[in-house]
Amino acid sequence: MGERSLERLDTVAIVGVGLIGGSVGLALRSRGLATKVVGVGRDSRALQQARQRGVIDEATTDLVEGVGDARVVVVCTPVSRIVQDVRRATAAAPKDALVTDAGSTKRQIVEQLEADPTAAATFVGAHPITGSERSGWEHARAALFRDRVCVLTPTPRTPSAQVARARAFWTSLGCRILEMNPSEHDEVLAYTSHLPHALAAALASSVPAAWLALAAGAYRDGTRVAAADPGLWTAIFRANRGPLLKAIGTLEERVAAFKYAMMTDDEDAIYRWWDEARHRRSLYEARQPTATPDP
Amino acid sequence: MGERSLERLDTVAIVGVGLIGGSVGLALRSRGLATKVVGVGRDSRALQQARQRGVIDEATTDLVEGVGDARVVVVCTPVSRIVQDVRRATAAAPKDALVTDAGSTKRQIVEQLEADPTAAATFVGAHPITGSERSGWEHARAALFRDRVCVLTPTPRTPSAQVARARAFWTSLGCRILEMNPSEHDEVLAYTSHLPHALAAALASSVPAAWLALAAGAYRDGTRVAAADPGLWTAIFRANRGPLLKAIGTLEERVAAFKYAMMTDDEDAIYRWWDEARHRRSLYEARQPTATPDP
Repeated sequence: MGERSLERLDTVAIVGVGLIGGSVGLALRSRGLATKVVGVGRDSRALQQARQRGVIDEATTDLVEGVGDARVVVVCTPVSRIVQDVRRATAAAPKDALVTDAGSTKRQIVEQLEADPTAAATFVGAHPITGSERSGWEHARAALFRDRVCVLTPTPRTPSAQVARARAFWTSLGCRILEMNPSEHDEVLAYTSHLPHALAAALASSVPAAWLALAAGAYRDGTRVAAADPGLWTAIFRANRGPLLKAIGTLEERVAAFKYAMMTDDEDAIYRWWDEARHRRSLYEARQPTATPDP
Repeated sequence: MGERSLERLDTVAIVGVGLIGGSVGLALRSRGLATKVVGVGRDSRALQQARQRGVIDEATTDLVEGVGDARVVVVCTPVSRIVQDVRRATAAAPKDALVTDAGSTKRQIVEQLEADPTAAATFVGAHPITGSERSGWEHARAALFRDRVCVLTPTPRTPSAQVARARAFWTSLGCRILEMNPSEHDEVLAYTSHLPHALAAALASSVPAAWLALAAGAYRDGTRVAAADPGLWTAIFRANRGPLLKAIGTLEERVAAFKYAMMTDDEDAIYRWWDEARHRRSLYEARQPTATPDP
């Protein structure tokens, strides 16, 4: 199956209908990719509202029932709950189902699921690199995945047919696929996502409340993601402690270099330090994909 | 003269027609606040283009000529050049002119100008807290100042009539006015602007170039201002070394608290650390002014 070919999906079950899960539902429904989208969650009232707003077709708080006839199960719960939800989903879903997730960390999750033979034969770890500082299906968008990278983290034990199905599934939502091993994923994302989040929070609380009226656009943009849910981010940080501590060490070195240049009032060193950062930022911009038009 | 009343301006001279100076020109012209806007700069070709595009009415590379019949002179050059440009402007402008600036730092500038009797009698330090990571009049916007705070930094020696005129001038461009002493301004801005800029640069260069394709929105927003001109920011940092080093110290304490919570895997401490940041960020959002409709 080619990367661009779409699987005809009968029923897709989404476990955890928040920002990510809700956006999976909207993307599937707006692109007509599934005959039925079942949302599984813990808050039945929120699920019914999501159903009424067209995010999902059916809603249930019973995971076993929800995944019972699913061809694909996407687990979009917080990283601290993914292992148990994937285990339950792989046990309850049809034998030929694909189970994938959307967790921001991968090594611990994949290691624990590899120890479970049913999960190991069914599950393909995934991380669509997208999101928002907002939580909840109310903020979900069908276009959330468009042109975004989705990292798949299969292991040597993951059946290649499942990997191909996972590629097709996330591609059908608009993602570009990269494959990495779970540890490599976590090392990279510690720098590209978890460090920027931790730093946004450090910056947010560094400015005394009384001075916030004088905060410039650099504070506004630099702290945007600090508005995100503390429980979600505590779980992500804890699931990636080693790599994130290493990334913080790198940042501390960059700050120390700036401090030294400032303390010695070394104009050239300050200039070069900034110019190197500017160059890195321009590389980032140059690597952004051009937007795909609406399908 | 009340804060909201506008001075009828004959000629306004803008020294330094870049992003800020160009936006002053566009704001004056679009609001019909001056009979003539003279742009003074060093690059005559860029000045002529700015004139042709309606950013200014007249252009000259001769500061003495440019400010010769100005009622208001706004010095919008980099902070390292403001003192000399204000000195020359106050010497060459009509005796009853107002000279103000738009520099991001204030203590050194005001201290040096206070030592010059002509400048001390004419100049009112100003810092409109707005801008962009982009430089040049090509990115100027008439609305750049709308609803933004402009800090005025008069001293006991500044004539109160000049302060009133500066309030009226910056208010007429759309700003909300705050008065602070120059040192207090620099201490606050070290936290609310200079630290966020330095941190954006530190973050930008912390992520290895090969991993930028996996950078999340937190990197994109957290590093936006690292695209700014290195010469401008080197000058701002150097003009505010003490306060900025203190602000960096505060940030380092916040990062150290996070590191300790991570190293000890203290879930509650990580959660509280993030939640405090989230609360600070929500205070910032609550204090943003609601937008004023177009005049």
